Amino acid sequence: MAEVDLATKQDGQVVTPWEVEADGEEGIDYDKLIDRFGSQRISPELIERMERLTGVKAHPWLRRGIFFSHRDFEQILDLYEQKKPFYLYTGRGPSSDALHMGHLIPFMFTKWLQDTFDVPLVIQMTDDEKYLWKGDHETNTIEKFYELGKENAKDIIACGFDINKTFIFSNLEYIGHMYPTIVRIEKAVTYSQAKGIFGFTDSDNIGKHSFPAIQAAPSFPVAFPHIFGNDTEPLCLIPCAIDQDPYFRMTRDVAPRLGWKKPALLHSKFFPALTGSKTKMSASDASTTIYVSDTPDMIKTKVNKYAFSGGQVSLEDQKNTGANLEVDVAYQWMRFFCDDDSVLQKIEQEYGPGPVRAGNKMLTGEAKQLLISTLQPIISRHQQARAAVSNEMVETFMTPRTLKFTR
Amino acid sequence: MAEVDLATKQDGQVVTPWEVEADGEEGIDYDKLIDRFGSQRISPELIERMERLTGVKAHPWLRRGIFFSHRDFEQILDLYEQKKPFYLYTGRGPSSDALHMGHLIPFMFTKWLQDTFDVPLVIQMTDDEKYLWKGDHETNTIEKFYELGKENAKDIIACGFDINKTFIFSNLEYIGHMYPTIVRIEKAVTYSQAKGIFGFTDSDNIGKHSFPAIQAAPSFPVAFPHIFGNDTEPLCLIPCAIDQDPYFRMTRDVAPRLGWKKPALLHSKFFPALTGSKTKMSASDASTTIYVSDTPDMIKTKVNKYAFSGGQVSLEDQKNTGANLEVDVAYQWMRFFCDDDSVLQKIEQEYGPGPVRAGNKMLTGEAKQLLISTLQPIISRHQQARAAVSNEMVETFMTPRTLKFTR
Repeated sequence: MAEVDLATKQDGQVVTPWEVEADGEEGIDYDKLIDRFGSQRISPELIERMERLTGVKAHPWLRRGIFFSHRDFEQILDLYEQKKPFYLYTGRGPSSDALHMGHLIPFMFTKWLQDTFDVPLVIQMTDDEKYLWKGDHETNTIEKFYELGKENAKDIIACGFDINKTFIFSNLEYIGHMYPTIVRIEKAVTYSQAKGIFGFTDSDNIGKHSFPAIQAAPSFPVAFPHIFGNDTEPLCLIPCAIDQDPYFRMTRDVAPRLGWKKPALLHSKFFPALTGSKTKMSASDASTTIYVSDTPDMIKTKVNKYAFSGGQVSLEDQKNTGANLEVDVAYQWMRFFCDDDSVLQKIEQEYGPGPVRAGNKMLTGEAKQLLISTLQPIISRHQQARAAVSNEMVETFMTPRTLKFTR
Repeated sequence: MAEVDLATKQDGQVVTPWEVEADGEEGIDYDKLIDRFGSQRISPELIERMERLTGVKAHPWLRRGIFFSHRDFEQILDLYEQKKPFYLYTGRGPSSDALHMGHLIPFMFTKWLQDTFDVPLVIQMTDDEKYLWKGDHETNTIEKFYELGKENAKDIIACGFDINKTFIFSNLEYIGHMYPTIVRIEKAVTYSQAKGIFGFTDSDNIGKHSFPAIQAAPSFPVAFPHIFGNDTEPLCLIPCAIDQDPYFRMTRDVAPRLGWKKPALLHSKFFPALTGSKTKMSASDASTTIYVSDTPDMIKTKVNKYAFSGGQVSLEDQKNTGANLEVDVAYQWMRFFCDDDSVLQKIEQEYGPGPVRAGNKMLTGEAKQLLISTLQPIISRHQQARAAVSNEMVETFMTPRTLKFTR
C-alpha cells in the first residue's frame, strides 16, 4: 500500500469519514477528489449499458451526476449480464435518533439498486464507531448508540427494503460473526498505512485504529456465513458518499492479499446543508436541518427561513442576472428530490443565470415553494412507512438468517 | 496513565508479553521487576493469613516464592473472609499443539486456587492474538490457531478443573459477548499509552494495537453476562506469569474510569527452559523442551542430555564447592514439581554449595535422576487425564452457560 497521506488537505479540501471541508464558496471540487482518490467517473456510456442490461431507466441521481464516481462498476454489470452473484453493502453511524434528509440518500439509492438488480443487501450500523468517536461515560453511552441504531433501523426499513433480501446488523451485536474476517483484515494493515489513509494520531484511542477493519469486513461475503455460506464468489457493491471511500481504498488494497475480491463502489456527492453547500449536512444543528420526522409546517418554515439562496438580492438584479444555481439550496435539493426532469428544467430556465427568458423570472420564494411542495409529500410518505415498521420487523431484519435470492 | 515506557530495557532486562530477556547468567532480577512494575511482594504474613482463612496449607509455589508478587491480593482475602464474590481469570495463547511443562504452571496453580476458594473461573484462549502476531496466509492460518486452542483446552481440562465452575472460551468464538466491554476499554486507552506499555511501533498491524483491550475484558464480570448477569460486584483475580502484567497494569488503570473494579493479580516467576534459566521456556525448540505428551524415555533422555547443570565439572570440585543451584535446572524444576520439601532440602544440602556434608555429595546425574522420577509420574498422570477428556467435554467447557457457585 502506498503510504501517501490522502487524509490531508493537499488540494485545499479535506475529505475523510470524519471531516469534510471545502476550500471555496462553491463547495467540494469533485473532479479533484476523483483524481486524488484514483476512482473513475461514471460515464454516459456506463449508464447506458446499465439501462440496456437491466431494462430500467437510470436513477435520476445517476443521470444527474449526484452519483458521479465508481470503482469497478463495469465488473458488477458483467456479473449481472452473466447472471453471476453480487450483493449490496451500505451502512449508517447511528449518531442521532432522527435522520435528516441527507441520511436517506444512500438508502433511497440502495433501495433502487436492490429493486433493479434483485440482489441481497447488508446494512451495517456502526454503533461501536459512534461510541469510539463520540461516546462518553454519562450521556453518550454505548447503550445509547445501540438504541439509536435500532431506532434508525426503522427509518432505513421505511425506505422499502425487501425483508427477504436484506440483513441489517448492529456491530455491537453481530461482531462475533464477522470477527475472523476482521482479524484477517487487521493483520493486513499496519498503523502507518491507517495513519496515511485516515489521518489518525497517537492520541487517538486504540479502538479507532482498528475500526477500519470492522467497516471493511462486510465487503467480503465470508463475513455473512448465514447468507453466503462458504461462497467467496459474490462480489460486493457499495453505494456510499465519497467521504467513505478511504475505508474501501484500504479494503480494496488488502483484498488480494487475503485471497478475496475487491469490492466495487458507487460514490455520491454530498447532500448540501440547508444553510449552504460548503460542507455535508450535519445532524447536530437541529434548527437549521430538515429531519425525516419534521411536520409539513416545520419543513415550510425551515426552507423559507434557512435555505441558502443563490438568487439576487433585488428583483431588478434577479431579472437581469438570475440565481447562482450552484449554491442555491432550493435548486440543489430539487436535483435530489424531484424526479420530474421538466420541473428541474423550468427552475434552470426561469430561475437560473441569464436575463428573463420566456416572459417569466422566478424569485427565490417561488423556488423554495417548489422545494417545499416536493419535500412535504416525500417526508409524509416516509413517516407513514416508518409508523408501519414494528419492533418485530426490526428484529427480523436484524436476525442473522438465510436470505432469498436467485443468483 | 503515566506514559512511561515500561517496555524498554531500562534495567538491563526486557519483560513484555512477547519478549523476556534477562541481562546476566542468573536470569531475571525479580526484585527489580517488582520495583519497575510497581507491584507488591507476597509476604510470609500474607501467606499466613490465607492459610488461616482457608484452613488450607499454602501451595508450594507460594511457600517457595515462585508466585512472588501480587496486586491487591489482600482485597481478595477480605472478600473471602466476608463471603463476598470473586472469580479467577487466566488464559493461554494457543501457539502449539503440545503444551510444554511451563505452560501447565498457571493452570496447575489456578486449579489449586479454584479448589481452595471455591470460585468460578474463566479461561481465555487468545487464538486471535496468535494469528495477529504469528499468523500467515498458508500455514499459520486463523483456523489453525482456533483448532490449536481446542486441542490445548484438552490439556487445560486435564488439569482437573470443575466443569460446573469453569468457562473456557476462544476469542474468535466468544468475542461477540465481550465486545461492548472491549469497546469501552479501547475507548479509554490511547495509542501513546499502549505504545508506552507494550512497545508497539507504527509498523505493527492495527489489530495488535487494539488487542490489549481484548485481553483486558475478561477482568470485568460484565464480559460474562451468562455467568454474572449484570452484577459488577465480583472482583477478578488473575494468576499469571509476570510477563503478562503489562496487560493488567493497563486494565487496572482504565477500570476506575469505566466504573469497574481493578482486577487483583498473583504473579509467578518464569519457568526456566531445560537448557538454562535466562529466558522463559519456548515451545518452538522441540528437541530441548519437555512436552506434556513426552514418553518416560523421552523425559529421561531430554533431562539427561539437555538439563543445564549448575554442578562442577570434576568430582573433586563438586565435592569441595557443590553446585550452583540458582542455575541448576534439575533443582529449579524440582522446586516446581516436587511437593515434598524434604527432598528439596536433601538436594540443597547434598548437591548445593559448600563442601561435603552428611557424608554424601550428590552429583548432577543423581539430581537429574530425582527430577526424572518426579516428572515421569506427573506427566503420565496428565496424559491419562487428557485421554479421558472427550470432545463433548471440551464443547461443554466452552459453551457460554451459567456456572454453579455459592458466593
